[in-house]
Amino acid sequence: MSILKAALCQFSAAREAEATKEKAARMIREAAENGAQLIVLPEMWCCPYTPRAFRPYAEADGGRTQAFLSALARETGVVLAGGSIPEREGGKLYNTAFIYGPDGRELARHRKAHLFDVDIPGMRFKESDSFAPGDAVTVFDTPFGKMGAAVCFDLRFPELFRAMTERGARIVLLPAQFNLKTGPRHWELLLRARAADNQLFVLGCAAARDESSPYTCWGHSTAVDPFGMVCASCDETEQILYAALDMDEIDEARRQIPTLSALREDLYPVAK
Amino acid sequence: MSILKAALCQFSAAREAEATKEKAARMIREAAENGAQLIVLPEMWCCPYTPRAFRPYAEADGGRTQAFLSALARETGVVLAGGSIPEREGGKLYNTAFIYGPDGRELARHRKAHLFDVDIPGMRFKESDSFAPGDAVTVFDTPFGKMGAAVCFDLRFPELFRAMTERGARIVLLPAQFNLKTGPRHWELLLRARAADNQLFVLGCAAARDESSPYTCWGHSTAVDPFGMVCASCDETEQILYAALDMDEIDEARRQIPTLSALREDLYPVAK
Repeated sequence: MSILKAALCQFSAAREAEATKEKAARMIREAAENGAQLIVLPEMWCCPYTPRAFRPYAEADGGRTQAFLSALARETGVVLAGGSIPEREGGKLYNTAFIYGPDGRELARHRKAHLFDVDIPGMRFKESDSFAPGDAVTVFDTPFGKMGAAVCFDLRFPELFRAMTERGARIVLLPAQFNLKTGPRHWELLLRARAADNQLFVLGCAAARDESSPYTCWGHSTAVDPFGMVCASCDETEQILYAALDMDEIDEARRQIPTLSALREDLYPVAK
Repeated sequence: MSILKAALCQFSAAREAEATKEKAARMIREAAENGAQLIVLPEMWCCPYTPRAFRPYAEADGGRTQAFLSALARETGVVLAGGSIPEREGGKLYNTAFIYGPDGRELARHRKAHLFDVDIPGMRFKESDSFAPGDAVTVFDTPFGKMGAAVCFDLRFPELFRAMTERGARIVLLPAQFNLKTGPRHWELLLRARAADNQLFVLGCAAARDESSPYTCWGHSTAVDPFGMVCASCDETEQILYAALDMDEIDEARRQIPTLSALREDLYPVAK
Protein backbone atom coordinates (compact mmCIF):
# COMPACT_ATOMS: atom_id res chain seq x y z
CA MET A 1 0.00 0.00 0.00
CA SER A 2 1.20 3.44 -0.90
CA ILE A 3 -0.83 5.89 1.17
CA LEU A 4 -0.98 9.62 0.52
CA LYS A 5 -2.57 11.58 3.32
CA ALA A 6 -4.75 14.38 2.01
CA ALA A 7 -6.63 17.09 3.88
CA LEU A 8 -9.45 19.23 2.52
CA CYS A 9 -9.86 22.45 4.49
CA GLN A 10 -13.51 23.43 4.36
CA PHE A 11 -14.05 26.95 5.62
CA SER A 12 -15.81 30.17 4.73
CA ALA A 13 -14.38 33.64 4.29
CA ALA A 14 -14.36 35.88 7.36
CA ARG A 15 -15.50 39.50 7.11
CA GLU A 16 -11.92 40.76 7.00
CA ALA A 17 -9.35 39.46 4.55
CA GLU A 18 -6.67 39.09 7.22
CA ALA A 19 -8.98 37.09 9.46
CA THR A 20 -9.69 34.73 6.56
CA LYS A 21 -5.98 34.23 5.98
CA GLU A 22 -5.43 33.56 9.66
CA LYS A 23 -8.15 30.94 9.56
CA ALA A 24 -6.66 29.33 6.44
CA ALA A 25 -3.18 29.30 7.97
CA ARG A 26 -4.51 27.74 11.18
CA MET A 27 -6.22 24.95 9.30
CA ILE A 28 -3.27 24.28 6.99
CA ARG A 29 -0.89 24.07 9.95
CA GLU A 30 -3.26 21.77 11.85
CA ALA A 31 -3.68 19.50 8.82
CA ALA A 32 0.09 19.31 8.32
CA GLU A 33 0.64 18.57 12.02
CA ASN A 34 -1.81 15.72 11.63
CA GLY A 35 0.27 14.25 8.84
CA ALA A 36 -1.36 15.65 5.71
CA GLN A 37 1.02 15.65 2.74
CA LEU A 38 -1.47 17.23 0.32
CA ILE A 39 -3.78 20.03 1.40
CA VAL A 40 -6.61 21.51 -0.67
CA LEU A 41 -8.49 24.77 -0.06
CA PRO A 42 -11.89 25.83 -1.45
CA GLU A 43 -12.73 27.93 -4.48
CA MET A 44 -12.55 31.72 -3.89
CA TRP A 45 -11.76 31.13 -0.23
CA CYS A 46 -10.12 34.52 0.27
CA CYS A 47 -13.09 36.77 -0.45
CA PRO A 48 -16.88 36.88 -0.39
CA TYR A 49 -18.29 34.91 -3.33
CA THR A 50 -19.97 37.88 -4.94
CA PRO A 51 -19.12 39.69 -8.17
CA ARG A 52 -18.40 43.03 -6.50
CA ALA A 53 -15.67 41.43 -4.35
CA PHE A 54 -13.68 39.86 -7.15
CA ARG A 55 -11.91 42.93 -8.55
CA PRO A 56 -10.94 44.47 -5.20
CA TYR A 57 -9.51 41.13 -4.06
CA ALA A 58 -7.81 40.29 -7.35
CA GLU A 59 -4.06 40.22 -7.50
CA ALA A 60 -1.44 40.06 -10.23
CA ASP A 61 1.31 37.51 -10.61
CA GLY A 62 3.25 37.17 -7.35
CA GLY A 63 0.56 38.90 -5.30
CA ARG A 64 0.08 38.77 -1.55
CA THR A 65 -2.18 35.74 -1.37
CA GLN A 66 0.14 33.80 -3.64
CA ALA A 67 3.08 34.72 -1.41
CA PHE A 68 1.05 33.70 1.63
CA LEU A 69 0.27 30.27 0.11
CA SER A 70 3.82 29.72 -1.07
CA ALA A 71 5.19 30.51 2.40
CA LEU A 72 2.72 28.14 4.06
CA ALA A 73 3.54 25.32 1.65
CA ARG A 74 7.23 25.78 2.42
CA GLU A 75 6.69 26.11 6.16
CA THR A 76 4.58 22.96 6.40
CA GLY A 77 6.37 20.99 3.67
CA VAL A 78 3.18 19.94 1.90
CA VAL A 79 1.76 20.14 -1.58
CA LEU A 80 -0.71 22.98 -1.15
CA ALA A 81 -3.55 23.35 -3.63
CA GLY A 82 -4.39 26.83 -2.48
CA GLY A 83 -8.00 26.80 -3.61
CA SER A 84 -8.78 29.48 -6.13
CA ILE A 85 -8.43 33.24 -5.85
CA PRO A 86 -9.18 36.13 -8.21
CA GLU A 87 -6.16 36.63 -10.44
CA ARG A 88 -5.59 39.77 -12.51
CA GLU A 89 -3.61 39.92 -15.74
CA GLY A 90 -3.86 42.92 -17.98
CA GLY A 91 -7.42 44.14 -17.62
CA LYS A 92 -8.80 40.63 -17.17
CA LEU A 93 -9.68 38.65 -14.07
CA TYR A 94 -9.45 34.87 -13.78
CA ASN A 95 -10.73 32.41 -11.20
CA THR A 96 -7.41 30.72 -10.65
CA ALA A 97 -6.19 27.76 -8.62
CA PHE A 98 -2.55 28.05 -7.50
CA ILE A 99 -0.66 24.96 -6.41
CA TYR A 100 2.61 25.03 -4.49
CA GLY A 101 5.20 22.36 -3.76
CA PRO A 102 6.79 21.56 -0.37
CA ASP A 103 9.60 24.01 -1.16
CA GLY A 104 7.13 26.82 -1.77
CA ARG A 105 7.63 26.81 -5.52
CA GLU A 106 4.54 27.28 -7.68
CA LEU A 107 3.88 23.95 -9.36
CA ALA A 108 0.95 25.07 -11.47
CA ARG A 109 -1.94 27.44 -11.83
CA HIS A 110 -5.25 26.54 -13.37
CA ARG A 111 -7.57 29.24 -14.61
CA LYS A 112 -11.18 28.00 -14.43
CA ALA A 113 -11.94 27.06 -18.01
CA HIS A 114 -15.74 26.80 -17.81
CA LEU A 115 -17.46 29.70 -16.12
CA PHE A 116 -20.54 29.37 -13.96
CA ASP A 117 -23.27 30.96 -16.07
CA VAL A 118 -26.57 29.48 -14.92
CA ASP A 119 -30.20 30.46 -14.68
CA ILE A 120 -31.77 28.01 -12.26
CA PRO A 121 -34.94 28.99 -10.38
CA GLY A 122 -33.60 30.67 -7.25
CA MET A 123 -30.02 30.74 -8.54
CA ARG A 124 -28.92 33.09 -11.29
CA PHE A 125 -25.23 33.67 -11.69
CA LYS A 126 -23.17 34.92 -14.61
CA GLU A 127 -19.56 34.42 -13.69
CA SER A 128 -18.46 35.44 -17.17
CA ASP A 129 -19.47 39.02 -16.30
CA SER A 130 -16.56 39.03 -13.85
CA PHE A 131 -14.02 36.56 -15.13
CA ALA A 132 -12.39 35.52 -18.37
CA PRO A 133 -12.05 31.76 -18.88
CA GLY A 134 -8.74 29.95 -18.77
CA ASP A 135 -7.22 28.50 -21.89
CA ALA A 136 -5.48 25.37 -20.68
CA VAL A 137 -5.79 21.86 -19.38
CA THR A 138 -3.65 21.73 -16.24
CA VAL A 139 -1.55 18.71 -15.28
CA PHE A 140 1.69 18.96 -13.33
CA ASP A 141 4.34 16.95 -11.53
CA THR A 142 4.44 16.74 -7.77
CA PRO A 143 6.53 14.66 -5.35
CA PHE A 144 3.50 12.34 -5.23
CA GLY A 145 3.05 11.89 -8.96
CA LYS A 146 1.16 13.82 -11.58
CA MET A 147 -1.94 15.73 -10.57
CA GLY A 148 -4.52 17.75 -12.42
CA ALA A 149 -6.46 20.80 -11.32
CA ALA A 150 -9.91 22.07 -12.18
CA VAL A 151 -12.26 24.56 -10.56
CA CYS A 152 -15.92 23.95 -9.66
CA PHE A 153 -18.03 24.19 -12.87
CA ASP A 154 -15.16 22.51 -14.77
CA LEU A 155 -16.43 19.33 -13.09
CA ARG A 156 -19.36 19.20 -15.51
CA PHE A 157 -17.15 18.51 -18.51
CA PRO A 158 -16.01 14.91 -18.89
CA GLU A 159 -13.68 15.83 -21.74
CA LEU A 160 -11.58 18.06 -19.47
CA PHE A 161 -11.15 15.20 -17.00
CA ARG A 162 -10.34 12.78 -19.78
CA ALA A 163 -7.65 15.14 -21.02
CA MET A 164 -6.13 15.36 -17.54
CA THR A 165 -6.22 11.58 -17.27
CA GLU A 166 -4.59 11.05 -20.64
CA ARG A 167 -1.85 13.47 -19.61
CA GLY A 168 -1.12 11.29 -16.60
CA ALA A 169 -3.01 12.89 -13.72
CA ARG A 170 -3.65 10.45 -10.87
CA ILE A 171 -5.39 12.89 -8.58
CA VAL A 172 -7.58 15.81 -9.65
CA LEU A 173 -7.76 18.71 -7.20
CA LEU A 174 -11.07 20.55 -7.41
CA PRO A 175 -11.70 23.66 -5.33
CA ALA A 176 -15.41 24.38 -5.63
CA GLN A 177 -18.50 26.10 -4.33
CA PHE A 178 -21.55 24.21 -5.49
CA ASN A 179 -24.67 25.81 -4.02
CA LEU A 180 -27.91 24.72 -2.37
CA LYS A 181 -29.54 24.11 -5.77
CA THR A 182 -26.80 22.26 -7.62
CA GLY A 183 -25.08 20.72 -4.60
CA PRO A 184 -27.74 18.20 -3.55
CA ARG A 185 -28.32 17.19 -7.18
CA HIS A 186 -24.92 17.04 -8.74
CA TRP A 187 -21.96 17.53 -6.40
CA GLU A 188 -21.33 13.97 -5.24
CA LEU A 189 -22.71 12.55 -8.49
CA LEU A 190 -20.22 14.37 -10.69
CA LEU A 191 -17.23 13.90 -8.38
CA ARG A 192 -17.94 10.16 -8.38
CA ALA A 193 -18.60 10.04 -12.12
CA ARG A 194 -15.37 11.78 -13.07
CA ALA A 195 -13.44 9.47 -10.73
CA ALA A 196 -15.17 6.34 -12.06
CA ASP A 197 -14.84 7.40 -15.70
CA ASN A 198 -11.11 7.92 -15.35
CA GLN A 199 -10.23 5.67 -12.43
CA LEU A 200 -8.32 8.25 -10.46
CA PHE A 201 -8.83 10.21 -7.24
CA VAL A 202 -10.93 13.36 -7.27
CA LEU A 203 -10.71 15.69 -4.28
CA GLY A 204 -13.53 18.21 -4.16
CA CYS A 205 -12.87 20.90 -1.56
CA ALA A 206 -15.86 23.15 -0.91
CA ALA A 207 -16.26 26.24 1.21
CA ALA A 208 -18.19 25.86 4.46
CA ARG A 209 -21.75 27.15 4.48
CA ASP A 210 -22.23 30.70 5.63
CA GLU A 211 -25.93 31.51 5.72
CA SER A 212 -25.11 35.25 5.92
CA SER A 213 -23.19 35.12 2.62
CA PRO A 214 -24.81 36.31 -0.61
CA TYR A 215 -23.89 32.94 -2.15
CA THR A 216 -24.63 29.96 0.04
CA CYS A 217 -22.30 27.03 -0.48
CA TRP A 218 -23.37 23.41 -0.28
CA GLY A 219 -20.22 22.38 1.58
CA HIS A 220 -19.84 18.58 1.72
CA SER A 221 -16.21 18.38 0.69
CA THR A 222 -15.67 14.90 -0.68
CA ALA A 223 -12.83 12.63 -1.73
CA VAL A 224 -13.59 9.91 -4.27
CA ASP A 225 -11.42 6.90 -5.03
CA PRO A 226 -10.56 5.34 -8.42
CA PHE A 227 -13.45 2.89 -8.04
CA GLY A 228 -15.80 5.87 -8.00
CA MET A 229 -16.62 5.41 -4.32
CA VAL A 230 -16.61 8.14 -1.68
CA CYS A 231 -13.65 7.60 0.63
CA ALA A 232 -14.27 10.66 2.79
CA SER A 233 -16.96 13.31 3.01
CA CYS A 234 -18.48 15.68 5.50
CA ASP A 235 -21.40 18.01 6.15
CA GLU A 236 -21.50 21.75 5.49
CA THR A 237 -19.70 23.01 8.59
CA GLU A 238 -16.18 24.34 8.92
CA GLN A 239 -13.73 21.46 9.33
CA ILE A 240 -10.71 19.63 8.00
CA LEU A 241 -11.65 16.50 6.08
CA TYR A 242 -8.90 13.88 5.98
CA ALA A 243 -8.61 11.18 3.34
CA ALA A 244 -5.99 8.44 3.14
CA LEU A 245 -5.47 7.84 -0.57
CA ASP A 246 -4.18 4.38 -1.43
CA MET A 247 -2.42 5.25 -4.65
CA ASP A 248 -2.15 1.58 -5.63
CA GLU A 249 -5.92 1.58 -6.13
CA ILE A 250 -5.51 3.50 -9.39
CA ASP A 251 -3.71 0.70 -11.18
CA GLU A 252 -5.91 -1.90 -9.48
CA ALA A 253 -9.13 -0.20 -10.61
CA ARG A 254 -7.75 0.11 -14.15
CA ARG A 255 -6.75 -3.55 -14.16
CA GLN A 256 -10.15 -4.74 -12.93
CA ILE A 257 -12.24 -2.69 -15.38
CA PRO A 258 -9.90 -1.56 -18.15
CA THR A 259 -11.98 1.23 -19.63
CA LEU A 260 -9.08 3.52 -20.52
CA SER A 261 -7.57 0.91 -22.81
CA ALA A 262 -11.02 0.14 -24.25
CA LEU A 263 -11.67 3.66 -25.57
CA ARG A 264 -12.75 3.58 -29.21
CA GLU A 265 -10.82 6.34 -30.92
CA ASP A 266 -12.13 5.05 -34.22
CA LEU A 267 -15.66 5.99 -33.08
CA TYR A 268 -15.02 9.28 -31.25
CA PRO A 269 -12.12 11.56 -30.45
CA VAL A 270 -10.54 11.16 -27.03
CA ALA A 271 -9.36 14.32 -25.30
CA LYS A 272 -5.63 14.30 -24.60
CA MET B 1 -45.88 19.45 -20.97
CA SER B 2 -45.11 16.87 -23.59
CA ILE B 3 -45.21 13.49 -21.86
CA LEU B 4 -43.84 10.31 -23.39
CA LYS B 5 -44.85 7.17 -21.53
CA ALA B 6 -42.03 4.67 -21.35
CA ALA B 7 -41.97 1.15 -19.95
CA LEU B 8 -38.90 -0.89 -19.05
CA CYS B 9 -39.64 -4.61 -18.98
CA GLN B 10 -37.36 -6.19 -16.42
CA PHE B 11 -37.36 -9.96 -16.69
CA SER B 12 -35.03 -12.92 -16.83
CA ALA B 13 -34.75 -15.64 -19.43
CA ALA B 14 -36.80 -18.75 -18.89
CA ARG B 15 -35.26 -22.20 -19.35
CA GLU B 16 -36.84 -22.60 -22.79
CA ALA B 17 -36.50 -20.00 -25.52
CA GLU B 18 -40.20 -20.09 -26.37
CA ALA B 19 -41.19 -19.55 -22.75
CA THR B 20 -38.92 -16.51 -22.62
CA LYS B 21 -40.56 -15.09 -25.73
CA GLU B 22 -44.00 -15.69 -24.27
CA LYS B 23 -42.97 -13.82 -21.15
CA ALA B 24 -41.56 -10.93 -23.20
CA ALA B 25 -44.70 -10.76 -25.33
CA ARG B 26 -46.93 -10.78 -22.24
CA MET B 27 -45.02 -7.89 -20.67
CA ILE B 28 -44.86 -5.86 -23.89
CA ARG B 29 -48.63 -6.24 -24.41
CA GLU B 30 -49.36 -5.33 -20.80
CA ALA B 31 -47.13 -2.24 -21.00
CA ALA B 32 -48.79 -1.13 -24.23
CA GLU B 33 -52.27 -1.68 -22.75
CA ASN B 34 -51.20 0.56 -19.89
CA GLY B 35 -50.35 3.32 -22.32
CA ALA B 36 -46.63 2.86 -22.91
CA GLN B 37 -45.48 4.42 -26.19
CA LEU B 38 -41.85 3.36 -25.83
CA ILE B 39 -40.90 -0.06 -24.46
CA VAL B 40 -37.40 -1.22 -23.62
CA LEU B 41 -36.19 -4.80 -23.00
CA PRO B 42 -33.00 -5.94 -21.24
CA GLU B 43 -29.65 -6.94 -22.67
CA MET B 44 -29.46 -10.55 -23.91
CA TRP B 45 -32.99 -11.18 -22.71
CA CYS B 46 -33.60 -14.13 -25.04
CA CYS B 47 -30.93 -16.51 -23.75
CA PRO B 48 -28.92 -17.40 -20.68
CA TYR B 49 -26.15 -14.82 -20.14
CA THR B 50 -23.32 -17.28 -20.56
CA PRO B 51 -20.80 -17.58 -23.39
CA ARG B 52 -21.86 -21.07 -24.43
CA ALA B 53 -25.41 -19.86 -25.10
CA PHE B 54 -24.53 -17.00 -27.41
CA ARG B 55 -23.74 -18.93 -30.60
CA PRO B 56 -26.68 -21.35 -30.45
CA TYR B 57 -29.05 -18.44 -29.88
CA ALA B 58 -27.45 -16.13 -32.44
CA GLU B 59 -29.39 -15.26 -35.55
CA ALA B 60 -28.61 -13.59 -38.84
CA ASP B 61 -30.32 -10.57 -40.36
CA GLY B 62 -34.08 -11.06 -40.33
CA GLY B 63 -33.93 -13.91 -37.84
CA ARG B 64 -36.77 -15.25 -35.73
CA THR B 65 -36.31 -13.03 -32.69
CA GLN B 66 -36.12 -9.96 -34.90
CA ALA B 67 -39.33 -11.02 -36.63
CA PHE B 68 -40.92 -11.60 -33.23
CA LEU B 69 -39.96 -8.10 -32.04
CA SER B 70 -41.03 -6.44 -35.26
CA ALA B 71 -44.43 -8.14 -35.11
CA LEU B 72 -44.94 -7.10 -31.48
CA ALA B 73 -44.02 -3.48 -32.22
CA ARG B 74 -46.55 -3.44 -35.07
CA GLU B 75 -49.22 -5.21 -33.05
CA THR B 76 -48.92 -2.85 -30.08
CA GLY B 77 -48.05 0.28 -32.06
CA VAL B 78 -45.11 1.25 -29.88
CA VAL B 79 -41.46 2.05 -30.37
CA LEU B 80 -39.89 -1.19 -29.18
CA ALA B 81 -36.27 -1.21 -28.13
CA GLY B 82 -36.02 -4.95 -28.18
CA GLY B 83 -33.16 -5.26 -25.73
CA SER B 84 -30.14 -6.93 -27.19
CA ILE B 85 -29.79 -10.39 -28.70
CA PRO B 86 -26.86 -12.31 -30.21
CA GLU B 87 -26.58 -11.35 -33.87
CA ARG B 88 -24.58 -13.33 -36.41
CA GLU B 89 -22.98 -11.89 -39.52
CA GLY B 90 -20.40 -13.88 -41.43
CA GLY B 91 -18.52 -15.82 -38.81
CA LYS B 92 -18.86 -13.09 -36.21
CA LEU B 93 -21.29 -12.59 -33.37
CA TYR B 94 -22.44 -9.21 -32.07
CA ASN B 95 -24.35 -8.16 -28.95
CA THR B 96 -26.95 -6.14 -30.80
CA ALA B 97 -29.86 -3.95 -29.81
CA PHE B 98 -32.68 -3.88 -32.38
CA ILE B 99 -35.22 -1.07 -32.31
CA TYR B 100 -38.55 -1.19 -34.13
CA GLY B 101 -41.10 1.50 -34.96
CA PRO B 102 -44.90 1.33 -34.42
CA ASP B 103 -45.26 -0.04 -37.95
CA GLY B 104 -42.85 -2.88 -37.24
CA ARG B 105 -40.08 -1.40 -39.34
CA GLU B 106 -36.55 -1.69 -37.97
CA LEU B 107 -35.49 1.83 -36.97
CA ALA B 108 -31.95 0.98 -35.94
CA ARG B 109 -29.62 -1.63 -34.61
CA HIS B 110 -26.73 -0.93 -32.28
CA ARG B 111 -23.93 -3.39 -31.91
CA LYS B 112 -22.37 -3.06 -28.46
CA ALA B 113 -19.24 -1.07 -29.11
CA HIS B 114 -17.38 -1.66 -25.84
CA LEU B 115 -17.24 -5.28 -24.72
CA PHE B 116 -17.39 -6.38 -21.11
CA ASP B 117 -13.88 -7.62 -20.41
CA VAL B 118 -13.32 -7.36 -16.67
CA ASP B 119 -11.35 -9.07 -13.95
CA ILE B 120 -12.98 -8.05 -10.69
CA PRO B 121 -12.58 -10.26 -7.62
CA GLY B 122 -15.51 -12.65 -7.91
CA MET B 123 -16.40 -11.52 -11.43
CA ARG B 124 -14.26 -12.44 -14.42
CA PHE B 125 -15.82 -12.07 -17.82
CA LYS B 126 -14.31 -11.74 -21.27
CA GLU B 127 -17.12 -10.87 -23.61
CA SER B 128 -14.67 -10.32 -26.45
CA ASP B 129 -14.09 -14.09 -26.53
CA SER B 130 -17.68 -14.40 -27.79
CA PHE B 131 -18.52 -11.17 -29.56
CA ALA B 132 -16.96 -8.73 -31.96
CA PRO B 133 -17.50 -5.05 -31.11
CA GLY B 134 -19.76 -2.78 -33.10
CA ASP B 135 -18.33 -0.03 -35.23
CA ALA B 136 -20.90 2.75 -34.98
CA VAL B 137 -22.51 5.42 -32.87
CA THR B 138 -26.25 4.82 -33.15
CA VAL B 139 -28.79 7.65 -33.34
CA PHE B 140 -32.08 7.37 -35.19
CA ASP B 141 -35.39 9.08 -35.80
CA THR B 142 -38.57 7.93 -34.11
CA PRO B 143 -42.08 9.38 -33.97
CA PHE B 144 -41.01 10.83 -30.61
CA GLY B 145 -37.82 12.49 -31.76
CA LYS B 146 -34.27 11.30 -32.11
CA MET B 147 -33.04 8.56 -29.82
CA GLY B 148 -29.70 6.88 -29.28
CA ALA B 149 -28.93 3.31 -28.29
CA ALA B 150 -26.10 1.76 -26.34
CA VAL B 151 -25.64 -1.56 -24.58
CA CYS B 152 -24.53 -2.09 -20.96
CA PHE B 153 -20.72 -1.56 -20.79
CA ASP B 154 -21.05 1.23 -23.38
CA LEU B 155 -22.39 3.26 -20.42
CA ARG B 156 -18.86 3.66 -19.08
CA PHE B 157 -17.75 5.83 -22.00
CA PRO B 158 -18.79 9.48 -21.79
CA GLU B 159 -17.54 10.14 -25.31
CA LEU B 160 -20.08 7.73 -26.81
CA PHE B 161 -22.91 9.50 -25.01
CA ARG B 162 -21.56 12.89 -26.05
CA ALA B 163 -21.52 11.74 -29.66
CA MET B 164 -25.15 10.58 -29.42
CA THR B 165 -26.09 13.90 -27.84
CA GLU B 166 -24.33 15.94 -30.50
CA ARG B 167 -26.16 13.91 -33.14
CA GLY B 168 -29.45 14.95 -31.59
CA ALA B 169 -30.46 12.07 -29.33
CA ARG B 170 -32.95 13.14 -26.64
CA ILE B 171 -33.36 9.72 -25.07
CA VAL B 172 -30.71 7.02 -24.83
CA LEU B 173 -32.01 3.46 -24.61
CA LEU B 174 -29.68 1.19 -22.69
CA PRO B 175 -30.38 -2.53 -22.34
CA ALA B 176 -27.99 -3.83 -19.71
CA GLN B 177 -27.01 -6.49 -17.24
CA PHE B 178 -24.80 -4.96 -14.58
CA ASN B 179 -23.99 -7.58 -11.96
CA LEU B 180 -23.80 -7.85 -8.18
CA LYS B 181 -20.27 -6.40 -8.16
CA THR B 182 -20.63 -3.48 -10.56
CA GLY B 183 -24.33 -2.82 -10.04
CA PRO B 184 -24.26 -1.46 -6.50
CA ARG B 185 -21.21 0.65 -7.27
CA HIS B 186 -21.81 2.05 -10.71
CA TRP B 187 -25.21 1.36 -12.25
CA GLU B 188 -27.22 4.31 -10.96
CA LEU B 189 -24.11 6.50 -10.79
CA LEU B 190 -23.30 6.13 -14.46
CA LEU B 191 -26.90 6.34 -15.69
CA ARG B 192 -27.26 9.60 -13.76
CA ALA B 193 -23.89 10.93 -14.86
CA ARG B 194 -24.51 10.35 -18.56
CA ALA B 195 -27.94 11.99 -18.24
CA ALA B 196 -26.55 14.97 -16.30
CA ASP B 197 -23.55 15.40 -18.60
CA ASN B 198 -25.74 15.55 -21.67
CA GLN B 199 -29.06 16.71 -20.26
CA LEU B 200 -31.18 14.03 -21.85
CA PHE B 201 -33.13 10.98 -20.70
CA VAL B 202 -31.32 7.70 -20.14
CA LEU B 203 -33.42 4.55 -19.81
CA GLY B 204 -31.47 1.64 -18.37
CA CYS B 205 -33.40 -1.62 -18.69
CA ALA B 206 -31.84 -4.51 -16.77
CA ALA B 207 -32.71 -8.17 -16.61
CA ALA B 208 -34.39 -9.39 -13.43
CA ARG B 209 -32.24 -11.28 -11.00
CA ASP B 210 -32.18 -15.03 -11.37
CA GLU B 211 -30.09 -16.56 -8.60
CA SER B 212 -29.93 -19.85 -10.53
CA SER B 213 -28.31 -18.17 -13.53
CA PRO B 214 -24.53 -18.41 -14.09
CA TYR B 215 -24.47 -14.60 -14.32
CA THR B 216 -26.47 -12.82 -11.65
CA CYS B 217 -27.90 -9.50 -12.74
CA TRP B 218 -28.24 -6.49 -10.46
CA GLY B 219 -31.67 -5.59 -11.82
CA HIS B 220 -32.76 -2.11 -10.70
CA SER B 221 -33.94 -0.82 -14.05
CA THR B 222 -33.81 2.95 -13.86
CA ALA B 223 -34.96 5.98 -15.82
CA VAL B 224 -33.03 9.22 -15.36
CA ASP B 225 -34.20 12.67 -16.39
CA PRO B 226 -32.22 15.49 -18.05
CA PHE B 227 -31.46 17.00 -14.64
CA GLY B 228 -29.61 13.80 -13.79
CA MET B 229 -32.26 12.71 -11.29
CA VAL B 230 -33.86 9.28 -11.10
CA CYS B 231 -37.46 9.53 -12.28
CA ALA B 232 -38.26 5.83 -11.89
CA SER B 233 -36.45 2.79 -10.56
CA CYS B 234 -37.18 -0.58 -9.05
CA ASP B 235 -35.65 -3.50 -7.21
CA GLU B 236 -34.27 -6.69 -8.79
CA THR B 237 -37.54 -8.60 -9.31
CA GLU B 238 -39.44 -9.21 -12.52
CA GLN B 239 -41.69 -6.25 -13.28
CA ILE B 240 -42.62 -3.49 -15.69
CA LEU B 241 -41.18 -0.14 -14.66
CA TYR B 242 -43.13 2.84 -16.00
CA ALA B 243 -41.68 6.32 -16.45
CA ALA B 244 -43.50 9.41 -17.69
CA LEU B 245 -40.88 11.41 -19.56
CA ASP B 246 -41.58 15.13 -19.76
CA MET B 247 -39.73 15.86 -22.97
CA ASP B 248 -39.81 19.62 -22.30
CA GLU B 249 -37.37 19.02 -19.45
CA ILE B 250 -34.55 18.54 -21.95
CA ASP B 251 -34.63 22.10 -23.21
CA GLU B 252 -35.35 23.40 -19.72
CA ALA B 253 -32.34 21.62 -18.22
CA ARG B 254 -30.15 22.89 -21.04
CA ARG B 255 -31.43 26.44 -20.54
CA GLN B 256 -30.82 26.38 -16.78
CA ILE B 257 -27.27 24.99 -16.93
CA PRO B 258 -26.05 25.44 -20.50
CA THR B 259 -23.14 23.01 -20.48
CA LEU B 260 -23.53 21.84 -24.06
CA SER B 261 -23.01 25.34 -25.40
CA ALA B 262 -20.11 25.87 -22.96
CA LEU B 263 -17.99 23.02 -24.29
CA ARG B 264 -14.43 24.18 -25.02
CA GLU B 265 -13.54 22.69 -28.36
CA ASP B 266 -10.39 24.80 -28.32
CA LEU B 267 -9.21 22.81 -25.28
CA TYR B 268 -10.39 19.29 -26.16
CA PRO B 269 -12.14 17.51 -28.99
CA VAL B 270 -15.87 16.96 -28.59
CA ALA B 271 -17.29 13.69 -29.90
CA LYS B 272 -19.87 14.21 -32.63
